[in-house]
Amino acid sequence: MDTRSKAVAARKAFLKLAAADGELKNAGLAAVKDALQSRAAAVFEANARDIEAAKASDLPAPLLKRLKFDDQKLAEVCAGIESLKGMPDPVGRIISARELDDGLELYQVACPIGVIGVIFESRPDALVQISTLCLKSGNAVLLKGGSEASRTNRELASTIAAATGAAGIPEGWIGLLETREEITQMLGLESLIDLIIPRGSNQFVKYIMDNTNIHVLGHADGICHVYVHSDADIGKAVRIIVDSKVQYVAVCNALETLLVHRNIARALLPPLKTALEKAGVTIRGCAETRSIIPAEPAGEADWRTEYLDLILSIKVVDGLDEAVNHINTYGSHHTDTIITEERRKAERFMDAVDSANVFHNCSTRFSDGYRYGLGAEVGIGTGKIHARGPVGMEGLLIYKWKLYGSGQVVADYSGDGGMPFTHRPIEHA
Amino acid sequence: MDTRSKAVAARKAFLKLAAADGELKNAGLAAVKDALQSRAAAVFEANARDIEAAKASDLPAPLLKRLKFDDQKLAEVCAGIESLKGMPDPVGRIISARELDDGLELYQVACPIGVIGVIFESRPDALVQISTLCLKSGNAVLLKGGSEASRTNRELASTIAAATGAAGIPEGWIGLLETREEITQMLGLESLIDLIIPRGSNQFVKYIMDNTNIHVLGHADGICHVYVHSDADIGKAVRIIVDSKVQYVAVCNALETLLVHRNIARALLPPLKTALEKAGVTIRGCAETRSIIPAEPAGEADWRTEYLDLILSIKVVDGLDEAVNHINTYGSHHTDTIITEERRKAERFMDAVDSANVFHNCSTRFSDGYRYGLGAEVGIGTGKIHARGPVGMEGLLIYKWKLYGSGQVVADYSGDGGMPFTHRPIEHA
Repeated sequence: MDTRSKAVAARKAFLKLAAADGELKNAGLAAVKDALQSRAAAVFEANARDIEAAKASDLPAPLLKRLKFDDQKLAEVCAGIESLKGMPDPVGRIISARELDDGLELYQVACPIGVIGVIFESRPDALVQISTLCLKSGNAVLLKGGSEASRTNRELASTIAAATGAAGIPEGWIGLLETREEITQMLGLESLIDLIIPRGSNQFVKYIMDNTNIHVLGHADGICHVYVHSDADIGKAVRIIVDSKVQYVAVCNALETLLVHRNIARALLPPLKTALEKAGVTIRGCAETRSIIPAEPAGEADWRTEYLDLILSIKVVDGLDEAVNHINTYGSHHTDTIITEERRKAERFMDAVDSANVFHNCSTRFSDGYRYGLGAEVGIGTGKIHARGPVGMEGLLIYKWKLYGSGQVVADYSGDGGMPFTHRPIEHA
Repeated sequence: MDTRSKAVAARKAFLKLAAADGELKNAGLAAVKDALQSRAAAVFEANARDIEAAKASDLPAPLLKRLKFDDQKLAEVCAGIESLKGMPDPVGRIISARELDDGLELYQVACPIGVIGVIFESRPDALVQISTLCLKSGNAVLLKGGSEASRTNRELASTIAAATGAAGIPEGWIGLLETREEITQMLGLESLIDLIIPRGSNQFVKYIMDNTNIHVLGHADGICHVYVHSDADIGKAVRIIVDSKVQYVAVCNALETLLVHRNIARALLPPLKTALEKAGVTIRGCAETRSIIPAEPAGEADWRTEYLDLILSIKVVDGLDEAVNHINTYGSHHTDTIITEERRKAERFMDAVDSANVFHNCSTRFSDGYRYGLGAEVGIGTGKIHARGPVGMEGLLIYKWKLYGSGQVVADYSGDGGMPFTHRPIEHA
């Protein structure tokens, strides 16, 4: 089947799935879990072949680990499916409700977005996670996983499609894309696809964003900042900075640039340098930083760089306003933290920084769907569409307006003798 | 000032306005109201010159009426400003709140979107309405009104800019664009502008959507449907269809195509034809329609046409599923109504129709911000970004995640000995 046909099938399926009740969707989830367990041997075998090929092409060890789909990963995705089953149906949740007049009631109700295109890394468990999230939320999905996992993904996708088909879920709701060419084709199908969620490298996400008219939920850069205000607790600051930088260095919510208030720079930088050195971090500093501690010079290019490495750039600033300006100029609207003992300063920073996640006195590494308690993470968005920051199930939902009448027409409410609206709130759960 | 400079100034202003408290924004609104009243003579004079020029170029009477800015319009916009002042600050509203651990609290909080570009019809009161909505919600705005109103708009915009500047609102938050070339320039400023709201003709909105990478909140077509189910009350159906079609024929939420269940067609169509004829409506029907009542023939092209005129296309269908398929194929995701006495059928229709507004037993003409009780309407969106359907203040807001800690780092919650998260909901207003 070509990409357009897969998208057409997905759209047809979505239009049915949008109206499916919670029980049917849960039956589909149960069927997925059963099928994954009964077909485990075939999935593991496909995965063994993917691993073999990856080893032959010298895939680095951490990527090999992500590629692995074994008993433990199977148990994890099955636990995830169980927890999805236990959740209330997110479709139909009432967001607001208002009586317009006697017997004329308006409800703003959560509904699925439609057909979602997801492009993800070589991690087969992600295929199960994403597709079951889409099923629970009534969306159809086109999936393109990393090519290293192609055999495992094919086995998983066909298992899920067959199991859900047998359970009465509309066919075509899950489609697997297998080549880069298919991604390119998908990017042009704006009348069929409602949202693209790209996960992957900076360059890759940028490419997606620049080459489609479809809404994209994602992030390219993750240039995150910590700003240490003049009154900060030094011990707290050092701990938070080190964690933000080194707890997991290759991820989008890791710290890249530290901003330090001039009045605390002499007290903070020497102990910070010791702690960072112990963790293997190289420091690049502005002139003022380098007058306090030895460091490589940092300049304009550093403020715009996501190192994703054991490198930290440091800039001394005049105060909160300069820090905010720096972040809004060079940042990527991802995650930025202020360290201060004064709540009012924290509020000013958090309101003025134009980022999806703004933190006070804690590590930038907390910006993550699991840590936020959102359940499985669909992606992280730094744009300004319906969902931003770490995005869980909510990112797969929008709303529609449902108006229930009993024969009302607008003419009766118009002109000089027109009836008034009541606009009375309706209590709802 | 060129368009880019206006956008740069607007972005600078937004970054301050986003952190402004409710009192300052209300002081700005009060200053706008005072200034409009004290400068009324100058505004009326500018408007008189616009009207004169419009008459000279034979602008149709209804458009002349919209162009007029007089004592009554001034009173209306001032009343609108008063009501905005009375509203709680929409920025900072807590959407959700969750404790991640002791002393680590996550809040999902409403915040402004940023710089909004609004292109609107030749109605000077819209300039006041839109700009004050933006001010209250902490957004900066670039405005381009219809050229017929250029003198009035210039007077209004400079009055508002001067008054808010004196009241301490960051300068540059309101910018006026005056030429079509400036619109084109604005469409390319995706790093400075966060959202475009185009109001105007179908063709114009389509042009905007096709020529920018900035998110667009709007709608091109408004191909709205009424579907009459087999069990419908005929009197109710006729009233709703006539109102949907003729109450205001030139607007996006007017009915264009009627779908009729085969089993009710013979009972419905003759009385409907009488009622529609009385209202001056021409009927175009499918073959089956024309076997019941005389009508011009309707075909494929009609199902895709927004007449915006006293013409109605009618198609007889097999039932609810065919109606839903027709709407999802030919509709424009705007507003669609089912007429039935069976609530379960209504629910099925409302869940399966992929439109921003889905109605039961009432006129399509209700889909409107004022009638919904949303306050002033910013626009109507048929897309799937943060806001859809009639959009009031909510369409100018998104959210950010605020995490308040007391020194927490992710390392403490990671690995085998890691602490668990509590993920306890926090009560909020």
